[in-house]
Amino acid sequence: MKYNLIIIGGGPAGYTAAEAAGKAGLSVLLFEKQNLGGVCLNEGCIPTKTLLYSAKVYDSAKHASKYGVTVPEPSVDLSKIVARKTKVVRKLVLGVKSKLTANNVTIVNGEAVIVGKNSVQCNGETYECENMILCTGSETFVPPIPGVDKISYWTHRDALDNKELPASLVIVGGGVIGMEFASFFNSLGVEVTVVEMLDEILGGMDKELSAMLRADYAKKGIKFLVSTKVTAFNQTEQGTEVLFENQEGEGKIVAEKLLMSVGRRPVTQGFGLENLSLELTERRCIKVNEYMQSSVEGVYVCGDLTGYSLLAHTAVREAEVAVHHILGKKDEMSYRAIPGVVYTNPEIAGVGQTEESLQSAGCAYKSVKLPMAFSGRFVAENEGVNGVCKLLVGEDDSILGVHVYGNPASEIITIAVMAVELGLKTEEWKRIVFPHPTVGEIFREAL
Amino acid sequence: MKYNLIIIGGGPAGYTAAEAAGKAGLSVLLFEKQNLGGVCLNEGCIPTKTLLYSAKVYDSAKHASKYGVTVPEPSVDLSKIVARKTKVVRKLVLGVKSKLTANNVTIVNGEAVIVGKNSVQCNGETYECENMILCTGSETFVPPIPGVDKISYWTHRDALDNKELPASLVIVGGGVIGMEFASFFNSLGVEVTVVEMLDEILGGMDKELSAMLRADYAKKGIKFLVSTKVTAFNQTEQGTEVLFENQEGEGKIVAEKLLMSVGRRPVTQGFGLENLSLELTERRCIKVNEYMQSSVEGVYVCGDLTGYSLLAHTAVREAEVAVHHILGKKDEMSYRAIPGVVYTNPEIAGVGQTEESLQSAGCAYKSVKLPMAFSGRFVAENEGVNGVCKLLVGEDDSILGVHVYGNPASEIITIAVMAVELGLKTEEWKRIVFPHPTVGEIFREAL
Repeated sequence: MKYNLIIIGGGPAGYTAAEAAGKAGLSVLLFEKQNLGGVCLNEGCIPTKTLLYSAKVYDSAKHASKYGVTVPEPSVDLSKIVARKTKVVRKLVLGVKSKLTANNVTIVNGEAVIVGKNSVQCNGETYECENMILCTGSETFVPPIPGVDKISYWTHRDALDNKELPASLVIVGGGVIGMEFASFFNSLGVEVTVVEMLDEILGGMDKELSAMLRADYAKKGIKFLVSTKVTAFNQTEQGTEVLFENQEGEGKIVAEKLLMSVGRRPVTQGFGLENLSLELTERRCIKVNEYMQSSVEGVYVCGDLTGYSLLAHTAVREAEVAVHHILGKKDEMSYRAIPGVVYTNPEIAGVGQTEESLQSAGCAYKSVKLPMAFSGRFVAENEGVNGVCKLLVGEDDSILGVHVYGNPASEIITIAVMAVELGLKTEEWKRIVFPHPTVGEIFREAL
Repeated sequence: MKYNLIIIGGGPAGYTAAEAAGKAGLSVLLFEKQNLGGVCLNEGCIPTKTLLYSAKVYDSAKHASKYGVTVPEPSVDLSKIVARKTKVVRKLVLGVKSKLTANNVTIVNGEAVIVGKNSVQCNGETYECENMILCTGSETFVPPIPGVDKISYWTHRDALDNKELPASLVIVGGGVIGMEFASFFNSLGVEVTVVEMLDEILGGMDKELSAMLRADYAKKGIKFLVSTKVTAFNQTEQGTEVLFENQEGEGKIVAEKLLMSVGRRPVTQGFGLENLSLELTERRCIKVNEYMQSSVEGVYVCGDLTGYSLLAHTAVREAEVAVHHILGKKDEMSYRAIPGVVYTNPEIAGVGQTEESLQSAGCAYKSVKLPMAFSGRFVAENEGVNGVCKLLVGEDDSILGVHVYGNPASEIITIAVMAVELGLKTEEWKRIVFPHPTVGEIFREAL
């Protein structure tokens, strides 16, 4: 049997494409070598948010007295938190599976190897197809720092399943993953140190807001070393030793555990990608056009494998675009308004341009910055907590970028995503009636 | 001195108009007889949300074990909760005042009386103006039920400042205000009964979702009597007695306290409205056009006084439209996408058409209903809690209405407000990249 579509990788791009194509009546075969849902569902977005919500409940209990609620000595049970995380993941994986089978997608568990643009082998069998979507995702990048092979360290995967709180934790890499775990373990009372090579954490997010978040977490006890390069690791009796250097010279930290969250890189090995001879970009990523087509006809690439955004929601949209193209339906990928969210507490979220990106592109813009306290609901729900909203407006009054530090930034940023993607001018956005009182009103206040 | 603009009433419509007009350089005089911010800020939206957030923190503590957090016996201190509410209100009232003075608005505290379309008297002085915006708001309607004059009852205002929990509370009127207080007092352990004349609570919201909310609160211990007419009140030694009749016959409830939340009506007396001879609608409300102009040139009417929506956010938008019209700036009021939110826990929110409104208008539509569990984040943050999202789609694939039951409905409904107001088709909305994982993604899932 020749399938209309073979998909390699069952993460957000893969399952979205499979479901959409199956629903449209295509014969679809999906290969997944581990678990449906990919990194996002099994060891990324979803499990971290489940853990972080437990931490939020704990935070809320600790600070309940600010709201007139008395909570005597709350505590956490990490093994229960982890068990619940596992249960949530299992439920959602089953949900993905049932959506796929409901849409007649054939799922094959195994390591697929591409033979050619119309042929894939797996578990000794050969499968033929008209089209192919490659979405093998990304994996943790472990930097070749001296000593790294001699220490025991956590990746995000180990940190998710760990059931005993260490006394201290050093996190190498202060990006989104690093900061979400920093937030989690800090809430639970672990002594956390974050080491970041760049001059600010959360690279890619608005720098001013990231600095605010860093300052708030410093007050909560996290130690930050920015502009700091890790030079070597040692395993000692006291724990893992991290040697570093920065402007102030050399130094070292010792912690009971070490979390490696330097970055991720596309998975390009082990599935016969080399047999397709796809054209690459200057940055050695696979070249795709606005329909997610690679240089080989019938071969589409979506998600982290493109090396572009490494975000589940980008992958989902890319997968839809690819399937639409296969179906002959007009659609194309837009990267104008891809939101970025960090689920710390408070959260930080942004969409569109940053001041940094506008400045480096030489674009004129106006920045409107408003404390979150301009939202009545924010004041009602955030006793003694600050936040800020920043709107970046172009010379033609269009919304170029929006950045929020304060809960629930993750949910309200979508309002801004719509404004940026639809190219709304400030006046057009302001004609929308925002419900009162909401935190989302902060955008309207800033307009 | 003749002012460009005189505003009567310092609630959301009044302060928004005053700020906008002042910012645009008009000379503005605002009359407020009580507190700046009006009912919304002083005794409505903001204080209720502050109390409800305390209840939410308490709920979260009570259910913390579901998330692996141990909280031994949480309790509430109502006087602290009320004191915080008062502090939040004071802070926000000061914020309104400082925005007005920063924009050169003259504020006069006192009861203004309209003499003619260009003249207002207050505290013995006469003030002249070119334009006038009337926004006196609304007041609690107390129905003339036999015995109502012989009992002591709470209005929302008393309920907000009450510092001792009654053992039992009967709420007459299961609309938004009634249900928010029902939610608050139920969370705090009060035995609550809600009596509603219509066949469902929360009239105007999606009926199916309102019924779900009612069923959930029934499980939490609230007693509901719908399709039930209150026939008389008596004050007895056991408390206030409410006599009622419904399909099952006659009955009575006795409760320690009674909250009257039957409805609100526009404030039309006491400020010389009769001296303007404004044209009325068939329903005896003041007739206004799409620019909020009344039948008398230079006289605008905004907010609850129009009797139209009784929502702060409608008032705010109407005020902007009125000021734009005075300034000669093109703009007009649209009621296409006015959101409605009920801040129970879980929240319920909706925008645009309901199934009921579409059916009575004879419009064809498709209803897409999805459990909130289709959002991974909802699952991560709502252990054992259900919810539903309903999209009403027109024959041309435009989004006609969106209804959500589940937290944080209040914040994510704005995403739907934009889709409805901008007249997006399902395909256009689906091209928006929603951040993952968020509860707001439920819309995208349903598309």
